[in-house]
This record gives sequence, structure tokens and C-alpha cells, in this order.
Amino acid sequence: MNSTVEQVMADLPLHPFSPFPIELPTYVANTHSAAVLVSIFAAGCCVIFLVTYGLIQRMRPSMGSGEMLVAMWFALCGCIHLFFEGYFSYNAFDMAGRTDIFGQLWKEYALSDSRYMTQDAFTVCMETVTAVFWGPMSFFCVYFIIADHPLRHPFQIIISLGQLYGDVLYYAICTFQEVVNDIVYCRPERFYFWAYYFLCNFFWIVIPLLLIRSSVNEIASVFAKVKAASVGKKAQ
Amino acid sequence: MNSTVEQVMADLPLHPFSPFPIELPTYVANTHSAAVLVSIFAAGCCVIFLVTYGLIQRMRPSMGSGEMLVAMWFALCGCIHLFFEGYFSYNAFDMAGRTDIFGQLWKEYALSDSRYMTQDAFTVCMETVTAVFWGPMSFFCVYFIIADHPLRHPFQIIISLGQLYGDVLYYAICTFQEVVNDIVYCRPERFYFWAYYFLCNFFWIVIPLLLIRSSVNEIASVFAKVKAASVGKKAQ
Repeated sequence: MNSTVEQVMADLPLHPFSPFPIELPTYVANTHSAAVLVSIFAAGCCVIFLVTYGLIQRMRPSMGSGEMLVAMWFALCGCIHLFFEGYFSYNAFDMAGRTDIFGQLWKEYALSDSRYMTQDAFTVCMETVTAVFWGPMSFFCVYFIIADHPLRHPFQIIISLGQLYGDVLYYAICTFQEVVNDIVYCRPERFYFWAYYFLCNFFWIVIPLLLIRSSVNEIASVFAKVKAASVGKKAQ
Repeated sequence: MNSTVEQVMADLPLHPFSPFPIELPTYVANTHSAAVLVSIFAAGCCVIFLVTYGLIQRMRPSMGSGEMLVAMWFALCGCIHLFFEGYFSYNAFDMAGRTDIFGQLWKEYALSDSRYMTQDAFTVCMETVTAVFWGPMSFFCVYFIIADHPLRHPFQIIISLGQLYGDVLYYAICTFQEVVNDIVYCRPERFYFWAYYFLCNFFWIVIPLLLIRSSVNEIASVFAKVKAASVGKKAQ
């Protein structure tokens, strides 16, 4: 019996994810280096920014630079949520064996968080909500910003709070597992922790917070104006 | 060695939570019956409603009944989030041993979801966010509704989306664990599943959805009005 267990263990492919005892029987190593994968991702982001910039120049060239940046941010979010995180959500049960570009990118990222390789319940559910709701809604938000639509600020708050709350839980659960249960999902090299796990997700803490604050202020000032106008009318 | 393990197992208190092999060394049985506990909880809710109603009658007696119901809902949410869920968050590491009213209420509820007894990472993190953020913000929202404050609708969206997203993840992760990993947190009796786990949480799906829709419509109509007015002014 024991020798059978040992044989099964010996037949399992070695993998680079923490904690090392997790079993990933379908694991296939990446063929692209980290530098190539990160460059491809960065190039993809640049293309998304350029296409959005081009669209805005065509549809509303008078748009201010602040608004333009917010529209570009939501275009990037839409693509990442719907396509990249949607890819994870759709393939969550066999991420370790995937060798296309998105699969290799996720395997590279998972060096900092192995939950993306192990069908972790929270990660799959949170990423599915992100892909299905915040992804399409981000594209709507780009349109609402360009069209100066009345739904822009409600959408901006909803998407940004969704991203922020998902991200807070993502960080919090990972920290809880490390502190309380001594389970570490990140490889020991500090590079992966800071450059992948911390930095890549930190954008979705800071920017949503700024966007929520901006939309809350915008809404409050419009409501205050309308209230003041109606009080003024009554006084006349 | 084996006999020591058996001895330790035999010394562990029997508990009524699913899955039964989970170990709760500090478990103490409830002294109140389910009927008494549910009645106490319902009485608490009635007191909160009555106090809020009294406050509104004093501060803004002209308030419409729809607005009054929303204010009473947020007062209830504030109390449940801050005090009841805050109690769980604060005592998460020793819930099974607590015998005060809140402790007994949580142990009764946990018959439908044992994650409240086992320091489950998602449950503790989600409940902590709920207690720390949605709790106090709900009380602010009650004030904003009574005062017809410009921040009312942004707050209503933020709190409601927070509740809704937390609840969706709560349901989704529990379902995922049952379907994918065959882990069932609810006792086999269907009563606990439907009356505690499903019904008690379903309020926080339906009501937040309605409140988000209402605030989004309200904000959009005010923005549309202001836009129309500014277009009208330019045309003059």
C-alpha cells in the first residue's frame, strides 16, 4: 500500500507553486520566460490604451485628460476582467495544464498565489463575479463616460466598489491563511510577493478608492445643487 | 500512539455541526431552545424598528412611508452588522464555547453553516468587513435619509452593493464546496437549509438589489435633469 502511494507521488509532476505539497497532476511547465510573458501583457495593455484613445479622439475629441484617463482605465479593466479573468473562471479546473498565452500568464502569476492553480473556492467565485459583472459593466462605463451619460457615476461606483471589495477580501483571506493557519500561497522569493501579489492587485485598491470618492463627490454636489434650486424656487 | 489519538477523539465534546468530523474542543451546548432564541432575535428586530420609527416621527414626521421603510431597514442592518456580526468577528476564534445570547444565536444559526464555528477564512474576513464598514455606514445612511442629505444615494448604493456582493460570495462559495469538494456545512435536516441558511441571507440579496436600482434611477434622473437644464440655458 505504502509503496503504491510512494509510486503515485513519484509519478506526479514537480511544480514550482507554494505550498509545495499541493498536487497538480496535470501540471505542464511554461515555455515562455517571465520577461517574455510580462512584456506580452504590458504590450496588450498598451494596445488597449491606444485603441481606447483612438476611439475617444473620434467620438469626443473635446474630452478632458482626467476623463480620458478614467475611460482608458475602465477599458483596460473591461478587457482584463472579461477576457483574462474570464479565461481563468472558465478554465479554473485545469489551469496547471494550460499552455496558451493566458494559461502561461496565469501560471507565472500563480507563483505568487497558488490558489489560481488549485480551484480555490473563494478565488474561483470572486473571479467569476468579476468576469461576469464588472467586465461587461466596465465597457458600459467607458461608453457612459464618452457619452456623458447620467448612468456614468452610479456605474463607476458599483464597478469600483465591486473591484475594491473583491480585492480587500482577496488580500485579507490570503493574510488570514498565512497568519492563522500557516498556509503560504506565495513562493519564498520576495520578488513574487511584492511585484506580482502585492503590486498587481494594489492598483485595484487605490484607483477604485479614488474613483468612488470622485463619483460620491460629484453626485453629492449635483444633489445639493438641485436641492438648493428647489429651496430657492419655494422661497420666491 | 493510536490509542492516544482515540483517547483524544473520545475526549472531544460531541457537537451538532456538519460535517461531523470537524473538531470543536471548546464546544458547549446551548441552554436556550431554538424557539426561544428565534423569538429573542425577532423581539430585538421589533425594538429596533420601533425606536427608529419613534426617532423619525420626532425628527421628520412628514416622511413618506417608502422612505420610512428604507430608513428602518438601514437601522436594522446597522445593528445586525455592527453588533451581531461584529460580535462574531471579534469572537471568531472561540464561537463554539460562547454561551451568552449572541453566542447561542450564532450556534443556532451555525446548524445551517458550520463555517461560523471553524474560523473559516472567508467567513471571518467577509463578516469583519461587514461589521467594520457596512455597520457604521448603515447608521450614517439612516441619518442621511432622515435629513434628505446629498450623500444618501451614494451611501445607499455602496452599502447595498457591499451587502449584495458579500452575500453572493457567501452563497457561491458554500455551493462550490458542496458541488466540487463534497463538503456540506449544513445539517441534513432541510429546515436548517431553507429557514436559516437560505431565507435569512436571501433578504440581503433582494432588498439591496431593489435599493441599488432605486438609487441608480434617482441619481440618473437628477443628472439628466441638470444636463437638460444646462443644455436649455446654452440654447437661450
